[in-house]
Amino acid sequence: MLDLSVYSSQQNQQLIDSTDWNVLETEFDPSRLHHQETVFTLGNGYLGTRGTFEEGYPHDSPATIIHGVYDDVAIASTELVNCPNWLPFVVKVAGERFRMDSGEILHYERRLDLRLGIVSRDVRWRSPAGHTVEFHFERFASLANQNFLAIRCQITSIDFEGDIEVEVGFHPEPRTQGVKHWQTLKQGGLDNLIWLHSQTLHSAIEFGMAAKLIVEGEETASVCVRQGEHHHSTLVTTLQVEPEKTVTLEKIVTLYTSREIPTPAEAALIRLVAAPSYSTLLAAHIAAWERVWQDSDVVIEGDRLSQLSIRYNLFQLLAVAPRYDDRVSIPPKTLSGFAYSGHIFWDTEIFILPLLIHTQPALARNLLTYRYHTLRGARRKAQEMGYRGAMYAWESASTGDEVTPRWVPGPNGEQVRIWCGDIEVHINTDVAYAAWQYWQTTGDDEWMRDCGAEIILDTAVFWESRVEWNQQRHCYDIRDTIGPDENHDRVDNNAFTNVMVQWHLQTALALWDWLVKSYPDTSAQLAEKLYLQPEQMELWGDIANRLYVNQDLATGLIEQFEGFFNLEDVNLADYEPRTKSMQGLLGVEATSQKQILKQPDVLMLMYLLRDRFDRKTLKTNWDYYSPRTDHSYGSSLGPAIHAILACDLNQPVEAYTHFMRAAMVDLADVRRNAHEGIHAASAGGVWQAVIFGFAGVRMTNFGPIACPNLPPNWTRLKFRLKWRDEWHEFDLTA
Amino acid sequence: MLDLSVYSSQQNQQLIDSTDWNVLETEFDPSRLHHQETVFTLGNGYLGTRGTFEEGYPHDSPATIIHGVYDDVAIASTELVNCPNWLPFVVKVAGERFRMDSGEILHYERRLDLRLGIVSRDVRWRSPAGHTVEFHFERFASLANQNFLAIRCQITSIDFEGDIEVEVGFHPEPRTQGVKHWQTLKQGGLDNLIWLHSQTLHSAIEFGMAAKLIVEGEETASVCVRQGEHHHSTLVTTLQVEPEKTVTLEKIVTLYTSREIPTPAEAALIRLVAAPSYSTLLAAHIAAWERVWQDSDVVIEGDRLSQLSIRYNLFQLLAVAPRYDDRVSIPPKTLSGFAYSGHIFWDTEIFILPLLIHTQPALARNLLTYRYHTLRGARRKAQEMGYRGAMYAWESASTGDEVTPRWVPGPNGEQVRIWCGDIEVHINTDVAYAAWQYWQTTGDDEWMRDCGAEIILDTAVFWESRVEWNQQRHCYDIRDTIGPDENHDRVDNNAFTNVMVQWHLQTALALWDWLVKSYPDTSAQLAEKLYLQPEQMELWGDIANRLYVNQDLATGLIEQFEGFFNLEDVNLADYEPRTKSMQGLLGVEATSQKQILKQPDVLMLMYLLRDRFDRKTLKTNWDYYSPRTDHSYGSSLGPAIHAILACDLNQPVEAYTHFMRAAMVDLADVRRNAHEGIHAASAGGVWQAVIFGFAGVRMTNFGPIACPNLPPNWTRLKFRLKWRDEWHEFDLTA
Repeated sequence: MLDLSVYSSQQNQQLIDSTDWNVLETEFDPSRLHHQETVFTLGNGYLGTRGTFEEGYPHDSPATIIHGVYDDVAIASTELVNCPNWLPFVVKVAGERFRMDSGEILHYERRLDLRLGIVSRDVRWRSPAGHTVEFHFERFASLANQNFLAIRCQITSIDFEGDIEVEVGFHPEPRTQGVKHWQTLKQGGLDNLIWLHSQTLHSAIEFGMAAKLIVEGEETASVCVRQGEHHHSTLVTTLQVEPEKTVTLEKIVTLYTSREIPTPAEAALIRLVAAPSYSTLLAAHIAAWERVWQDSDVVIEGDRLSQLSIRYNLFQLLAVAPRYDDRVSIPPKTLSGFAYSGHIFWDTEIFILPLLIHTQPALARNLLTYRYHTLRGARRKAQEMGYRGAMYAWESASTGDEVTPRWVPGPNGEQVRIWCGDIEVHINTDVAYAAWQYWQTTGDDEWMRDCGAEIILDTAVFWESRVEWNQQRHCYDIRDTIGPDENHDRVDNNAFTNVMVQWHLQTALALWDWLVKSYPDTSAQLAEKLYLQPEQMELWGDIANRLYVNQDLATGLIEQFEGFFNLEDVNLADYEPRTKSMQGLLGVEATSQKQILKQPDVLMLMYLLRDRFDRKTLKTNWDYYSPRTDHSYGSSLGPAIHAILACDLNQPVEAYTHFMRAAMVDLADVRRNAHEGIHAASAGGVWQAVIFGFAGVRMTNFGPIACPNLPPNWTRLKFRLKWRDEWHEFDLTA
Repeated sequence: MLDLSVYSSQQNQQLIDSTDWNVLETEFDPSRLHHQETVFTLGNGYLGTRGTFEEGYPHDSPATIIHGVYDDVAIASTELVNCPNWLPFVVKVAGERFRMDSGEILHYERRLDLRLGIVSRDVRWRSPAGHTVEFHFERFASLANQNFLAIRCQITSIDFEGDIEVEVGFHPEPRTQGVKHWQTLKQGGLDNLIWLHSQTLHSAIEFGMAAKLIVEGEETASVCVRQGEHHHSTLVTTLQVEPEKTVTLEKIVTLYTSREIPTPAEAALIRLVAAPSYSTLLAAHIAAWERVWQDSDVVIEGDRLSQLSIRYNLFQLLAVAPRYDDRVSIPPKTLSGFAYSGHIFWDTEIFILPLLIHTQPALARNLLTYRYHTLRGARRKAQEMGYRGAMYAWESASTGDEVTPRWVPGPNGEQVRIWCGDIEVHINTDVAYAAWQYWQTTGDDEWMRDCGAEIILDTAVFWESRVEWNQQRHCYDIRDTIGPDENHDRVDNNAFTNVMVQWHLQTALALWDWLVKSYPDTSAQLAEKLYLQPEQMELWGDIANRLYVNQDLATGLIEQFEGFFNLEDVNLADYEPRTKSMQGLLGVEATSQKQILKQPDVLMLMYLLRDRFDRKTLKTNWDYYSPRTDHSYGSSLGPAIHAILACDLNQPVEAYTHFMRAAMVDLADVRRNAHEGIHAASAGGVWQAVIFGFAGVRMTNFGPIACPNLPPNWTRLKFRLKWRDEWHEFDLTA
């Protein structure tokens, strides 16, 4: 039975009561302000801007976040900062400021057009003084030219005759979760232009932004610069309106940072002055999204909520993937929120990357090259911790050095030690795994030669120094680690980690053979650079064969780590209904003593190394671990993986429940934390659930093939995958 | 007899061997480099740029000087600074830099088109490697948009096939007579643009300049930014040429200072990016000059050298008069050289202003308003010296405070005291005189009410405190002064000064009557502001009537100052020929003990107050003072005045000699100091000599009338004068 009740609230019905390309909001509800700000986030591969309103509200959380613009901060070392806000657009009707929390809203609709990448809003508003005016706002962050942003506002008077004043500007020094990161170096205005030149306080990244205001059909002379408080320049125009007259205003914004150009303030000005019209910018933007959707769209028929939600998840990932920058990656909240400080986790390689590898390989390559550029940081980390090779940071930022906080304030003010940066070592195989998947799928030998091989080999070198020979058991241990299930830290022989390391070392050897044969010069250079010796490579095979995994030979059940089966067993159903994670409910310490999983661990392994486990083994482990996993408030990384494995076990209805939990996590605020930002890994998992779960795609030497397990209500599933320069079209019907 | 031999050198013959609108140079003569740099100066009311060559030479003196951009300096207090050079434009033919001092010049012609305001140059050059190429350079400083400058270079290969590289840029920190005044705040480049943002070291005037390079008929992509030494950005392009192929390059430059806009660097960029094409800029520039010439041109027929030279002198004045700025004035060397540090003297009011009052009254008004804005400085000077009212600085800059150097290094290293700033007080009447002339000619009552009255009245107040009652003689003395003839300083009762003060006080009273009657409110406010009392005003009349002047009642001969007639008399002819001033020849001290005039003093008075002296008195004084004046190397302010008075005495041939000395002072380097810059006062005197001398124009209550005394070779003299909103056309024939 499909239980969709949780998603069939009036809100969600409103959401889908439209085309399959539009996320709608039909009332202005201040209580959902922050959640909807996340939902209506726009991005263009360079920056993300939360869906706050142009006119601003007292408790709103405006944010514009640019890839790679980190600044130093306490505890988290470095964080992506909230950049100067480009949205401010204030309209005054007969002197009264347009605000939806004053006067009367006669009609309201906000729309995120996923196909076009546009957020728009229609409001019919009666001012406190009784003037009725209609507003149509629309905005986009150009996908065609990442340094251009634009807002168009059409104002139609219904019954008002008189002056409407429009003032647009910037908010130059927004804080990031309370922390100041900006100093304004210079700002000013001239004609119908304003600009801002600022710099981050510690990392000294320069930021330049410029804007112009255009009154359609009027001379620019009608716009002038106003010097506001703190010498803050804005652009102002006053329009004479009368009933049934519509005026159109366009705010065109350019912005640059010193990350991409040495002179961002000048570049912003130069580009702005020479900027095409709003319409021309918009046309190029729409065409760019059209090209993206051509390859990445997934069509689902028979289930409009699934259709809309898959597109929403794809949109947010396609909107955040860096297009022209291979020194940044995708944070767990995309560029839509500040949780996790914008650090980079395995979320990118394991959850987000498959969509891009199979439909936008150039973007996948950018993200993987970020890991190549951060190898030096990974080597520093290994060296500092007494190991060899490259040890990727659990949380990574610009340099690849570890930026996971070591101590964080606990709920009662005590300091809590966070071990992930020290011992959540599976990140090292995750990166290697993604590099391998990219290569296998694309056949991009050059990238593997120039970047991938060094990643896979130097992280393999690390494992050699990290494993310990257990003389008693006559095998290798990997002790004191954290697996994907972070409810249990400082464990020995985490099965996920050990088997993945096994795969890693075996893969590294296979890769080395290929490299020596195909690119002997490169292999010789790498051998010298990474101190690779033939006898050492033999050791890799030995380690791979002898890594300890506690698996019951009869049933195939794998113990998550040594001693897991000895922990207290718990029936999670006893705690339902709840609105918190089990860890939140029981506490960190108590949870770690119980068989409660935050997210799949052994099962995650069985998904990643899908071909190594037969259906019976999967069934045994699924039956054991799935009931012990906190599906509702554990990690948002889990549901999509469970959906895939459920499909593998021919349980499409259970799969669908997991799938919808992932697919709707942001649209329906399933976990009540969507205000913190988009769940990027979940979004990537949603695509994997559709492709590898419901469509049952498996990779063969001849390309992808589908073994579908469609949910009962899906009548059609259509998508395409690129495999070694060829597109494979899938059009599956029930 | 007309003796034109001095001007009929081959050089001058070349000069005039053309239309009546072009100054020509037909050979590149390094020995005349600096003189010709002055001659080929361009200006647009905002800046002046000396005629140095785009490619630069080891000993050249490039200078771009902007009105009002002063910076602190030793001795002279403050000086107009040499602004970053916008000209650099380097061409390399097959790697060899185009320089007229290497390879071979097969043809050369430089031209200053006075009508169009364009300097152009044609050079056919054979490179050291033997490649022959033709260059056509042209440049202008836009009169239509004072912040735009442009260079066009057309290169035609005669026999060369290969690469020509063009590199354009700025010289960002030129020195001003050896002194550093600039710090570069920022510079950079992007696409086909470069920019510079700098600041004066002491006065903190910001300067912004930007340039782009356009290859006609090619994509901008062919131009790129090169980072040279000291991070100095230039724009570079490489062109493939072949015989008979012409390539055209355009360098468009914008520049601003913080004097006119708070954000000059940004403004320069904004304007540059949105700049019209070279052709469009040029068309607007030509049209602007056309409008100027329509009112200010003087047509002389029968004497092409006079025709060309009058236009040249007019051109340089019209090119320097500030168009949109009433807080600057015209320095004695215009904006073409650094002599006198760019300070403002009486040269502007007495010599330059009449041209503008009668043909470009809006520009005259700007210049007079400069004196209004500097009244506060003049009041400070009066107060510091123990006087009341306003005492204009002999040398004035931005604030109106006195900036005449008090001590300067003498020829033998000794310190020489310069008294002009303390006692050359006639400047106070000169300013009042010019304000009055402006008003009388234009009828601009509003300006007189708002600015002029305060100038004339407060400077009159000064005289009241400056004169001394001489109980013995029962008259007022003005003691310890310097008159126009600076060969004699610290004199008592200089006749020029005393009679001008007489005029000043009488005029102030007449003005006051008018003001009280026409604008009682303004007069009341001024009375309060300037502490004007009725009894005090009566005193003015008394002082005017009793100022001491030693005039022989029988002959009308006026003694230049008390004791002049007792000084040693000298026959100047005894010292001819000479190439120095008499003061230079005899020394300061010795000259001051002799009856040798640097420039007209009593005769100057007779010109300024022309109606107060009859012909007989003029003749007496002319016969006495003219032979005692150093016409050739004394002040360049003298010859034009002598020309006028010679006309009044019906001596047009003698007048013509004086006239040509003034008219050719820069073109023919008559005084051998043209390299220091244009002689602005002389240029203004040249116009006055033509209009008030040869045409014999006198002002009546019904407007100007002409009583011509044309030189024998002039067949026609045509010009127009504006009198109280009406144009009066003069077309005089011999």
